[in-house]
Order: sequence, then structure tokens, then C-alpha cells
Amino acid sequence: MEPNQNHTWKTKLHEVIYEADTPSGKLFDVLLLIFILLSIVLVMLESVVSIDREYHRLLYIGEWVVTVLFTIEYILRIISVKKPFKYVFSFFGIIDFLSTIPMYLAILFGGGAQALVTLRALRLLRVFRILKLARYLGASNQLKDSIIASRVKIMVFLFAVMVSSIVFGTIMYLVEGEANGFDNIPKSVYWCVVTLTTVGFGDIAPQTALGQFITTIIMILGYGIIAVPTGIVSAEYAKSSIKYNDNNATPETKAAKTMDLPEDVELHMNSQCCINCLNTKHQDGADFCHKCGHKLHQ
Amino acid sequence: MEPNQNHTWKTKLHEVIYEADTPSGKLFDVLLLIFILLSIVLVMLESVVSIDREYHRLLYIGEWVVTVLFTIEYILRIISVKKPFKYVFSFFGIIDFLSTIPMYLAILFGGGAQALVTLRALRLLRVFRILKLARYLGASNQLKDSIIASRVKIMVFLFAVMVSSIVFGTIMYLVEGEANGFDNIPKSVYWCVVTLTTVGFGDIAPQTALGQFITTIIMILGYGIIAVPTGIVSAEYAKSSIKYNDNNATPETKAAKTMDLPEDVELHMNSQCCINCLNTKHQDGADFCHKCGHKLHQ
Amino acid sequence: MEPNQNHTWKTKLHEVIYEADTPSGKLFDVLLLIFILLSIVLVMLESVVSIDREYHRLLYIGEWVVTVLFTIEYILRIISVKKPFKYVFSFFGIIDFLSTIPMYLAILFGGGAQALVTLRALRLLRVFRILKLARYLGASNQLKDSIIASRVKIMVFLFAVMVSSIVFGTIMYLVEGEANGFDNIPKSVYWCVVTLTTVGFGDIAPQTALGQFITTIIMILGYGIIAVPTGIVSAEYAKSSIKYNDNNATPETKAAKTMDLPEDVELHMNSQCCINCLNTKHQDGADFCHKCGHKLHQ
Amino acid sequence: MEPNQNHTWKTKLHEVIYEADTPSGKLFDVLLLIFILLSIVLVMLESVVSIDREYHRLLYIGEWVVTVLFTIEYILRIISVKKPFKYVFSFFGIIDFLSTIPMYLAILFGGGAQALVTLRALRLLRVFRILKLARYLGASNQLKDSIIASRVKIMVFLFAVMVSSIVFGTIMYLVEGEANGFDNIPKSVYWCVVTLTTVGFGDIAPQTALGQFITTIIMILGYGIIAVPTGIVSAEYAKSSIKYNDNNATPETKAAKTMDLPEDVELHMNSQCCINCLNTKHQDGADFCHKCGHKLHQ
Repeated sequence: MEPNQNHTWKTKLHEVIYEADTPSGKLFDVLLLIFILLSIVLVMLESVVSIDREYHRLLYIGEWVVTVLFTIEYILRIISVKKPFKYVFSFFGIIDFLSTIPMYLAILFGGGAQALVTLRALRLLRVFRILKLARYLGASNQLKDSIIASRVKIMVFLFAVMVSSIVFGTIMYLVEGEANGFDNIPKSVYWCVVTLTTVGFGDIAPQTALGQFITTIIMILGYGIIAVPTGIVSAEYAKSSIKYNDNNATPETKAAKTMDLPEDVELHMNSQCCINCLNTKHQDGADFCHKCGHKLHQ
Repeated sequence: MEPNQNHTWKTKLHEVIYEADTPSGKLFDVLLLIFILLSIVLVMLESVVSIDREYHRLLYIGEWVVTVLFTIEYILRIISVKKPFKYVFSFFGIIDFLSTIPMYLAILFGGGAQALVTLRALRLLRVFRILKLARYLGASNQLKDSIIASRVKIMVFLFAVMVSSIVFGTIMYLVEGEANGFDNIPKSVYWCVVTLTTVGFGDIAPQTALGQFITTIIMILGYGIIAVPTGIVSAEYAKSSIKYNDNNATPETKAAKTMDLPEDVELHMNSQCCINCLNTKHQDGADFCHKCGHKLHQ
Repeated sequence: MEPNQNHTWKTKLHEVIYEADTPSGKLFDVLLLIFILLSIVLVMLESVVSIDREYHRLLYIGEWVVTVLFTIEYILRIISVKKPFKYVFSFFGIIDFLSTIPMYLAILFGGGAQALVTLRALRLLRVFRILKLARYLGASNQLKDSIIASRVKIMVFLFAVMVSSIVFGTIMYLVEGEANGFDNIPKSVYWCVVTLTTVGFGDIAPQTALGQFITTIIMILGYGIIAVPTGIVSAEYAKSSIKYNDNNATPETKAAKTMDLPEDVELHMNSQCCINCLNTKHQDGADFCHKCGHKLHQ
Repeated sequence: MEPNQNHTWKTKLHEVIYEADTPSGKLFDVLLLIFILLSIVLVMLESVVSIDREYHRLLYIGEWVVTVLFTIEYILRIISVKKPFKYVFSFFGIIDFLSTIPMYLAILFGGGAQALVTLRALRLLRVFRILKLARYLGASNQLKDSIIASRVKIMVFLFAVMVSSIVFGTIMYLVEGEANGFDNIPKSVYWCVVTLTTVGFGDIAPQTALGQFITTIIMILGYGIIAVPTGIVSAEYAKSSIKYNDNNATPETKAAKTMDLPEDVELHMNSQCCINCLNTKHQDGADFCHKCGHKLHQ
């Protein structure tokens, strides 16, 4: 009775909540996304004093609506998987829990104004669940690959940037001194990063002629080296781009290319999620989980 | 009498206004461009208090000259096409109408100073008609292609930038607080985008040591990820560049390449516009519209 | 007596002043470069009030030394070419003249302090003669090629940036208004370019919530499009790089490549300059001018 | 007795201090790195007035601990090489000496507060020893190659940036004048570099309409040319990337590639250092120094 058991309410629920292949699964994901965005907007609006004073009651009700919905979702997520503890202690499990509790904690401990804001800010972590949606697009794969491929080089580069900042920061501290806003070496290093990255707030700026001369060198240096990470990612991306076109070209994607479709959108459309071990990223048309061997529902 | 009818004043007018193949057609386009730029300069100068006080009368006359010329052009455009309604409700038709009416509305409704400026600002929409000229150059095709090809990736990237801004903005709001200019989360997120994009106005700047440390991380992050969209467009552009050289190489463009001319300038020089359906982008040497089959005049 | 006439003082002088193949020719160029830099440093130092007050006499003497030397050089340049008028009215001839006269004009017309500075600033135009040295390096050829190749695209792109600035500048003027520093549309457009190019002075910054929201869009837009010109130049440079390696590879440069030398430094080392028509860029080992056929001295 | 002599305490010590192939050699390097970072943190914290006042005694003790450890390390480095003078006068030898002496000098000469800070800042030079670690990673090789390959072009480019800054700086000095913060030409050139590199502190900003118009041109120019060094490094990096994949592919690295490892991490893992001439960068599996022929210990 394997196929029969496949369609009990529990597996049905798992399919709706964790996957996005069925219409109801897609609807659930879109609704969830709307509520996450709504909860973030609520946190943001509450921090604006003038809005909070005017609409405090409305925002408070909104908070509770979101909290109750998140609570229901959290409970449903726990009961629809075979190994609830695995979900509870997974990355997204912890985030889901943390973004649900603030209001309950506020009731329990009273919660002064500032503490309440801090608690509600935890809700922001929920944003990362939206990032999961990027996976469905599959478009970020090539991007991720080229960043991973240039990982070591970017680290070496950032390390060089940091050493330059410390060296130039100390020089500027000695040249400009406390009188001109370079109060201490850490602040001077902070200013140096602001300058090297071409942000340039201007809250601290060199006042002496020598300081301005050194700043000129730092800026031209920063201007020159901004090219380095760009060059790295460009080249890696171009390389991976060639690889994607040559190796990953299944007959379908080849056809897609001929029709001039952005072919990488087609990659990785399978959103199945194993009910047993919560593993995703299964092959298209897979029948069993490639990690634990459990039957996947179609 | 098909060829005869082709040269009535109406088709002649259509050729002058909508196309740029004949000397008179080119002259019309250049004159129109000059008047559009003039109308923008007028709007700009009027907003400068000192200039407006001195030359108010001159600017007012200039406004009316431009308005009358735009009105004549608008009427000519309507009567020279077979399906006037198609033009009136097309993108450029609406823009042409909106950039013509401000002065008439000012007379009708009196118009206070501020409302008048807002009305005149609508004239700016006319600028987009100038963009049409880029089409004649044909140089923007490859550019457009590479942006379209990397559309999904850029969106995923911008989405990641926005999520980072929200997360870091909230953290900075909690760390710095209202005392240091981070009044509320939306303002804090705004500051975060200012920093991540390396704009760095400096109207708001971190004051606490912890805030400056987090800012350092944000800036290095921003510095690192500025490489990503550049890498994407670079690689896509290089790819499309190869495609353009390989596939689109007609004998002429091949010859052009051998002579070291910037070959893409030659692409897409046909400026014919169907009198029936207003469709452009016809093949070189086309005799009939590729959309509605109507005869094109040579 | 062709070889004999070749070594009269006039041709000898021409070789020293206009070319850089002989030791004395190289020495002349280096000495000239030093005096040009010295003259620029003098103009700069004179503008610093504290330095000018202290060392006014010294700077004044330095000015006259440079002026006299430039005068001698200018006269020698005129008498050592066969067609002096061609040199006098050439680009560098006019610059040389303009950078020599300031002090003479100051004596003739008395010259108030401000007028004198403006006159001396003309000396800066002399800097461009230093740029001539870049030609000897030959390294800028590939760079120039890739910029020329992407000329049309960069213009289309800059045009789009300008239109965006005007549109967003007008919107910001209407949203923020004079109260927040957006005094008029031209100033608002200036602010928009400051923001789009990620410079961000901060002298004008949006104060209203709506203004900050629109600014966020402008900045993300600017961040996204900074990739476009970079992508264009990258791809064009990569293309020209391949071309240089494939087509321009003479046996010597091929050997250079095998030895891992930066091969482009070797290109275009001929600094001969025709005494008759002042043409440069002759083939290596050329005996006659490729423009007027006049004999070149070896 | 060659193998026997190879394992005396002196060669053992050399292996631990100068190389990183043995577990004890790696441990030494990691410990050294921690102490260098600690010494930098100490210098930084001492410059923060509030921290220095509170924990002066603790920081002072920390300083002496670091100084004593650096002294011991310096002595061990001298006695473990065959030619001590070669080490003492090598680049790292001088840096090691300079970063050790500050505290001794402070005792000898008394040392006022400011002088002491300057002395301690010398310790920062020690940071460069950490950079040595990058060599072990081998990841910076390709990066270095592409920067060296584009050396001449980047210099020509930076030269052009400098000339533009001087020319525009002088123009802005004449246009804006001392009243608007453009006090003198050097300061005006500094401002111009700040603007061209898109840093934009905002400590000096154009106030006149003409000045803002010229600034717009400078910014768009800077925006356009930011593409040039990026394009150069991108293309050179892509070229060297191809070279690395084609030529340097030994069977091992080829295997690494197949396994999708970041292959360049594998390059240059040999950290042997000749006890006789201090030369590094030996071939993998080398038995004798490739510079002086001295036996390397395995």
C-alpha cells in the first residue's frame, strides 16, 4: 500500500509546506513570502516614532496576527516531517522559532520599549527564508560557483586591503593626530577603509597638507585595486559560463539555447524535499532521496 | 496607381516625421531634437530663482514657442498615420501629448507657481523621444542584449543587496540609536544602501566604536560585491560580442571588420516606419511591413 | 653630399630636440621633462599663500629661469625645422608658445595678482607634452584601441546616464524642494550625477522620507549600471588583446612572448621625427618619411 | 656523516623557524602570527585614550611580553642560519629588528608619550611577515602575474589620471577660489583626486553654478575611466587564467581540476628555506638549493 500511504494528510501537508511543485505548494510559498515581508514592514514602521504614535494599536494587532500565523506554520512544519528534531535544530528551524517567540517573550517578561524592539528585530532573520526562493530560480548557481571558485583569491585580496588599512591608518594617525579627528588608531583604520573603498563619508577628513597628500596616494591605490576583485570575478564567471554552456547542456537546455532563452533559469527546477531527512536538491524525475533512500512523493 | 498614391502629401509627411532615410526626414529629426533640448533647458532655467526673476518674460515667450511647435508636430503626427488612435495611445503618443499640454492647462486652471513647475516637469518625459535616436545608431543593441541576458542574475543580486541592507540597517539602528542620527529602521536601511553602494554622503555617520567596526565590515562587503554585477555584465557582453562577430557577419560587415571599422555601427540602419501599424525595425531593403504586410515607401 | 648635409648643425639640432634615439636626444627629453614638472610645481607653490609670502623672491627667480629656458627651447624648435610655420601653428607649437609668454605678458601689462595666476596656469597646458612620452612606451596603443572601439557604446551609455540624471534630478527637486538644499533643477541634476557616480559629497542630502526612498533607487541603479562601461571596456580590451597577440606578432615580438616579457612594451619604439613635415610614427628601420618622402636621418 | 649532521639542533631549529613542512614548524608559524596580531592590537588599544587610562598597566606588561618574545625569536633566527649577516641585513631581518627595539629605546631615552607611540608604530611593519603566509597558499601567484603583466598599462593610466587632476584642479581653483574652500592649487588637485576616484568626502564642495557644472564633467569622466583599470586587470587575469590551465597543468593539478578543487591552491606548497643562503621557492621534492647548491633537509 505504498502509493496509498503516500497520500495521507501528513505527506500531503509535507508537500504543501516544504515543496513547490503542486499548485497548493506554490500558493503556500507565496502567502508565506507575503507574511514575512509584512512582518518586516511592521518592525520597520514601529521604529518610526511618528507612525508608531499614530497607529500603535493597528501595528500591535498586526504583530499578533503575524505571530499567530507564524506559530501555526511552525507547528505544522514540526508535525509534517518524520524526524521533527532534525527540523527543530536545523538552520531554518532555529530561525523560524526565533522569529515566532518575540511577542510571547514580551508578554512573559513585560519588556521595556528598547528590549521589545531588539526582540522584534530577530524577526528579520526570517528574511533569509525568502532567499530559499532564489534556489527555485536556479539562477544563482553560476553566480555561487564563480564566487566559490575565486574564494581563496578574494580572501588574499581582502587580507591585503586590511593590512594596507592598518599601515596607512597608523601613518594618518601620526600625521593628523587627535586635533583633526583622527582620535586613535582604530578610528584612523576605520577612516582608511572608508577611503580605500571609495565610500568617503567625510565625517573625518585630512586637514594638513601632508595628510591630504597621503590621502591622495591612498585614494589612487584604492582606485587601482578596485579593479582586482572585479577582474577575478569577471574571469571566473566567464570561465564558469563556458563550462555551463559546454558540460551542463542536456538536450533540453540545448534547445532552450537555440530559442535564445536565458538557459540557466531552467536548471534545478526540482523543489522536492525528502520527508525523512529534509534533504533537497534532488535530480529531476528522482523517485528516491539520494541521501537516505526514502521514497519521494511525486 | 500604387506607386502614385505612395507619393501623396500624407505619405510624404509620414516619411518626413516618422523616418530618417530622406534628407528632409533627417532635418526634421535634428530640428525636433533641438526643440526638445530647448524645452528642457527652459524648464531648468525657470527653476533658478535669480534667472527667472531677470528673464521671466523671455522664458515665458520661449515656453509658448515650444508649446505651439509641439502642438503643430502632435497634430501632424496624428493626421499622417492611417490609424491615428494607435499612435495616440502608444507610449510615445501619450508622452507627446503630456509634454504639449502644460501651458494650456496653466491657462485653463490659473496654476499657482508650484503646480506650474510640476506641470512643466512633465515636459521632461519628452527626453525619451531623443533616446529613439540611439536606435538609429544601432550601437545599443549588443548592450541591450547583454543586459537582458544577465537580467535574472542581476535581479537575484539586487535582491541579496536589499536583504543585506535590511539586516545591517536594523543592526546599525540597534547599535547607534536615535542619538547618532539613526532615527528609525527605514532611515538606517537608507544609510546602509548609501554605504554599500560606496556613495557615502556623510549626512549620517556612525559615532560609536562598535558602529564603526560594523561599518568597516559593510564597506568591505560592498567593495567585494561591487565586483559581482560587473563580472556578470562583462562576461555576458564578451559572450554576445563573440555571437555578434560569428553569426551576424554578413559579407559587408565581414569586410568592415577587415577594414578595422567599428562594425556594430553598421547594424540596423533602416529607419523605415510602417504607415499602417507604426512598426519599425524592418529588414534592410524591405518592401512590405513584416508585421501587417502594408507596402513600405522607399 | 647627402650624408654630409645630414650632419650639419641644423639636422643635428632637430635630432636632439625632436627625437629620442641618440643619447643627447634622450638627455634633452629628460631635462625638458624635469623643467616642465618644475614649472608646474612653481605655479602650484605660488598659489599656497603661506609659501608665497615666505619664498616669494625665490619663486619669482624660478619663474624667470623656467621662462628663459622655455624661450630658448621655443626658438631652437623653430629654427631646427624646415617649415617653421607648420610647427608654430601645430597643436604642440601653440601650447609651447602659450606656456612661454605669461611672464612677458605680466611685465607688459603690469598684471594684478589674480590675472597673473590665470596667466601662469596656462603653463599647465605644457603637461600634455609629457604625455608625448607615453608614445615612446607604446604601451597605451592597446588601451587607446579598446577605448576607440567602444567609443559609440560609451557615448550611448553616458547619454543614458545624463537623461536619468535630468529625470531623477527634476523628481528630487519636486520632492525635496528649496528648503532641503535642492534649490533649482540644475543643482538637483548636479546632485543626481554626484549620487549616480557614487561620489556622494554630502553637501546636499535628501531630508524627507520619500526623498531618501527615491535616493535608494537612484543609488542601486547607479550601482547596477557602473558595471556597464566596465563590461564594455573589459570585453573590448580582451578582444584587442587577442588581436594583438595573433596579428601583430612579428618574429621579434613572438620571441619576446616566449621569454615572458610584457610584449607590448616593444611595439613602436621608433622616435624618429621628419625634419620636413614633423610626422612621427615611422616604421622601425625606415629611411624615408612615409608622409612626405623626405630622407630621415639615422 | 651528512645525514647525521643534518639533524643537529641547529638545523632542527632552522627547520622549525624558517619552514612550515613539519608539525612543529607549522605550530611556530601559527604562534608567531598570533603574537604579531597581539602586538598590533596592543599598539591600537594604547592609542585609544579611554582604554589606555583604564588598563595602562596591563598594556605595559603586554608590551614587554611581546618585546621579550620577539627578542628571543630574533636571536634564534640569527643563530640558526649559517650566514647571520645575510639575515640581519635582509628585508625581513631589518623589519624584525625594528619591531623589537621600541621598548628598549623607550627605556634608554626616556621617551615622551608621542615619541613612544611613533616608536611602537614601527611594530606595524611586522604585519608584512604575515603576508609571507600568503606565499604558502600559493593563491596569490596568478593575481601577482596579472598585475605585473598590466604594470605598464596601469602606470600610463595612473599618469593620465594625475594629469587630469592637475588640469581640472587648477581650473577649479580659478573658478571657485579661496572663498569656497579651494584655498590653493595643491588642495584643489587633492579635491580633484577625491572626486575622480568617486570617494567624495564633501569637506570641500563646489558652490558656484559653473564649478558644479565642471564637477559634473569630472565625475562623469571619473565614472567612465573607472572602467579602464578594471578592464585591463580582467583581461590580463583571464589570459593568465587560460595560461595556468594549459601550461602549468602537471598530472597532479590536472587530477585536482577533474575533482573540481580550486587547483591553484595546490601550486607552490614547498616551504623549504635554504640554511645557507635563505633562498625559498624550491621545486617540490628538491634535495639541493637551486641557488647555492647547499643540501636541503627533508
